[in-house]
Amino acid sequence: MTTRRTAVRTAILAKQVTASMTATRAFAAVAPGHGISMKTPVPGPETMKLTEKLKVQGGMGGATAFFGDYAASTGCYIVDADGNRMLDMFSQIASLPLGYNHPALQKVVDNDPLLGTFAHSRAALGFVPPKELPDLLDDTFLKVAPKGLTRVQPMLCGSSANENVFKAAFFRMRAMQREAQGRGITDFSEEEMTSCMVNQAPGCTNDLSIMSFSGGFHGRTLGALSCTHSKEIHKIDVPAFDWPTAPFPRLKYPLAENSEYNKAEEKRCLDEVRRIFQTRKDEGRPVAAAIVEPVLSEGGDLHASADFFKGIQKACKDFNSAFVVDEVQTGVVVSGHMWAHEAWGLEESPDFVCFSKKALVGGYYYKDEFQPPGGARVYNTWMGDATKILFFKAVLETIEKEGLQKTVKEVTQKLNSILVKAASSHPQYVSNIRGQGTIMAFDAETPALRDQLFAQLRNNGVLVGVNGTQSIRFRPALIFNSDHVSEFEGVFQSTLKQLAAK
Amino acid sequence: MTTRRTAVRTAILAKQVTASMTATRAFAAVAPGHGISMKTPVPGPETMKLTEKLKVQGGMGGATAFFGDYAASTGCYIVDADGNRMLDMFSQIASLPLGYNHPALQKVVDNDPLLGTFAHSRAALGFVPPKELPDLLDDTFLKVAPKGLTRVQPMLCGSSANENVFKAAFFRMRAMQREAQGRGITDFSEEEMTSCMVNQAPGCTNDLSIMSFSGGFHGRTLGALSCTHSKEIHKIDVPAFDWPTAPFPRLKYPLAENSEYNKAEEKRCLDEVRRIFQTRKDEGRPVAAAIVEPVLSEGGDLHASADFFKGIQKACKDFNSAFVVDEVQTGVVVSGHMWAHEAWGLEESPDFVCFSKKALVGGYYYKDEFQPPGGARVYNTWMGDATKILFFKAVLETIEKEGLQKTVKEVTQKLNSILVKAASSHPQYVSNIRGQGTIMAFDAETPALRDQLFAQLRNNGVLVGVNGTQSIRFRPALIFNSDHVSEFEGVFQSTLKQLAAK
Repeated sequence: MTTRRTAVRTAILAKQVTASMTATRAFAAVAPGHGISMKTPVPGPETMKLTEKLKVQGGMGGATAFFGDYAASTGCYIVDADGNRMLDMFSQIASLPLGYNHPALQKVVDNDPLLGTFAHSRAALGFVPPKELPDLLDDTFLKVAPKGLTRVQPMLCGSSANENVFKAAFFRMRAMQREAQGRGITDFSEEEMTSCMVNQAPGCTNDLSIMSFSGGFHGRTLGALSCTHSKEIHKIDVPAFDWPTAPFPRLKYPLAENSEYNKAEEKRCLDEVRRIFQTRKDEGRPVAAAIVEPVLSEGGDLHASADFFKGIQKACKDFNSAFVVDEVQTGVVVSGHMWAHEAWGLEESPDFVCFSKKALVGGYYYKDEFQPPGGARVYNTWMGDATKILFFKAVLETIEKEGLQKTVKEVTQKLNSILVKAASSHPQYVSNIRGQGTIMAFDAETPALRDQLFAQLRNNGVLVGVNGTQSIRFRPALIFNSDHVSEFEGVFQSTLKQLAAK
Repeated sequence: MTTRRTAVRTAILAKQVTASMTATRAFAAVAPGHGISMKTPVPGPETMKLTEKLKVQGGMGGATAFFGDYAASTGCYIVDADGNRMLDMFSQIASLPLGYNHPALQKVVDNDPLLGTFAHSRAALGFVPPKELPDLLDDTFLKVAPKGLTRVQPMLCGSSANENVFKAAFFRMRAMQREAQGRGITDFSEEEMTSCMVNQAPGCTNDLSIMSFSGGFHGRTLGALSCTHSKEIHKIDVPAFDWPTAPFPRLKYPLAENSEYNKAEEKRCLDEVRRIFQTRKDEGRPVAAAIVEPVLSEGGDLHASADFFKGIQKACKDFNSAFVVDEVQTGVVVSGHMWAHEAWGLEESPDFVCFSKKALVGGYYYKDEFQPPGGARVYNTWMGDATKILFFKAVLETIEKEGLQKTVKEVTQKLNSILVKAASSHPQYVSNIRGQGTIMAFDAETPALRDQLFAQLRNNGVLVGVNGTQSIRFRPALIFNSDHVSEFEGVFQSTLKQLAAK
């Protein structure tokens, strides 16, 4: 039934796109409130008008795609300001767990009196936490904590999560150094106390560093940005700490046909990781932590084997450095696991696991030994946002109730088959297919072909993400199901045909 | 009537505190839902229990004061987990504009359907802004923009506002440098492109810097923290950029009696500001911006004259540097003006004005010439939170409708009289009274006496803030009115008497 509906829609679509992209009622056949329905190319005239207005106001970063009509958007469908309804496989840069206006979340607004109070009578969570907070932490973040991690520090976003992880790692390394000198871990010397106030060593740990990976992305505040290496435009003309960048493996696909090469590539990178640790140690300025994403997302969906990540963890252990896994984009079931690193089968958990996006608010898990010595060292006014925790509770309940982890696994297989088929029929648009759960990506032959495919898919009603130089990535919400896959398949195949015929 | 009620309450209080601080029904006489009502010392047993639980979960920064019962809190009164109802003159670290559960804000939850949608179907505001966003920006931030500033960049918090201001200032200085070399402002060289990816100059602007002031506070992420100099514990064991710290005047009070000294002190500091600009310029590593708070709040409520701030602006102009005013704690009417810097009578607006706290979400205003060249250079996933903008609209409407700017001015005078009287009767607890609007502070003779006064006031039902080494600060909500002042006066006087009798 789904297949037939999709076939019909695909036929209509093919007709429409080869004719013109102006307003049409071609998709009126789709059930109301569901399904792709395109009225204009994207961006459409209403978005253009709003963009002009926003530009005068500052432009919100100057990289808007289109304006959204969020009240009209539902499930996996985003409606834009021109009334186009698109199948959203990018989910607000991978940040929506349950799509748009999910009833379980609206129920929180309608029925939970704490929502309003938490929203407009906002607590400084570190100063006067709401009496409900400990239970809420238990029912949310701690309920799904990675094995071996029992502590959580909420923050507002992924960048602030990472920045504070770095601080906690520096505190720990300095504490170890003081202990080695026979001092108490917070026995600050007079020189440390005065020098830190003017940004100098020894009070400021300008001799310590965080190792990150080429292609990695960990945020855009200045500390986080020193660990980000995905695109030049993110970093140029901004200062950075003199922290080391290790190479991340560039694997060849398909994996089965390139196992020798890939093994050597991962060894090359791990050797370099250990060399950096050793060099900095020899220079008396050790690396306090290494941070890595399970899938280097902004850098183009770069993957590596479980052994590679185990190798980083081993190196961290050997050099008394913290092993930080940044799950901002990979966390919360999208990988098929609650946390993507669970697929690696680590014997011991990472020292820190960072989250944000689909967790609705930033934060990190950490091991007991990284508890900052003394209060107010990891601290700020809001320390997160309690309203988001109320919603996240409903998200976790919905994942369980609706079996969304199973949905992700089913959808993953189907999407993969579609891509494999497309790679064989249109290799110039689809190659190097890779993924963990619905964190999927593929490459076009050139950046231009990628951009073409991206734009045409969008005009045909499917919104995907782009990353790296020539990749397209999927980041659907967890409610993205087999019906959505079928709808995607129709549009994808007809779009590829349409482009090939040009 | 109010005075009589206060007198009665004060009498009861005096009796209570001199007897014991255990549970009592002495305050049951107070009208239900209003007024101070203390049942236990603070922190009470229920807070103690919750603190133990929170500690195991990580402790939320390890510096909680007590747990709040936010649903039971109303107006300027916070109720804690033990049922104590305190007059809140600190407002969640100065971040609540209208106190607790204000009907105008609850109305947004009850009546605005966008609130729910914006909350649970959260936009990546820079990627797919809601179609309502341009109008919302007009009706909120831009409606109250400082004169001469027409552009606004929302962010999530004060730290991320400041971090991105720094980036915009660096972009601008590099652009000017390229122009001077006859290059296009984004004509990045090959060397810049490759070096920035590994955190090195010339791509990273490690030669440029941001000047900040001794005693200033601008946040705790690593860039913002390099400009923070309020307390050692904020900075120690964290790396910092090699950015310069200028002295901020330490004025003597009362101002009228120390005008000669203060003038010389401000000149000393301004001379040093200019010396730093000149030195760094001569060294070929110019200062891209200077950032300052109108009142250095975390550093102990340090004030300076309008001329001092004009002098900083002048120096910035002379050295082609951006003048950044951080109004995170001083903005939104608390100073008596919408923005505290409006009191300075600048001929030209600052280049950047940062906000957060009472604006409910972070962000900054900026001049046209600081528009980043090209898109996605100031960018991140969420770029703020649209729900907060809906609430901020209601806040601004309420300020106007209820004449809260006038209330602030009335309250300021009355609070000042009370402090002046107390300084004369109890100078060991109250001296160096200073303020702009309800941003008020005074010093105790020693840190220990300050801590004693703070704790006893809290046990007697008045919650104030502390800062610097021995200051107490007021940061009431904008709805704090004459009745609240009277209630405060009663508790304050009896607490001082009580402490003096010890």
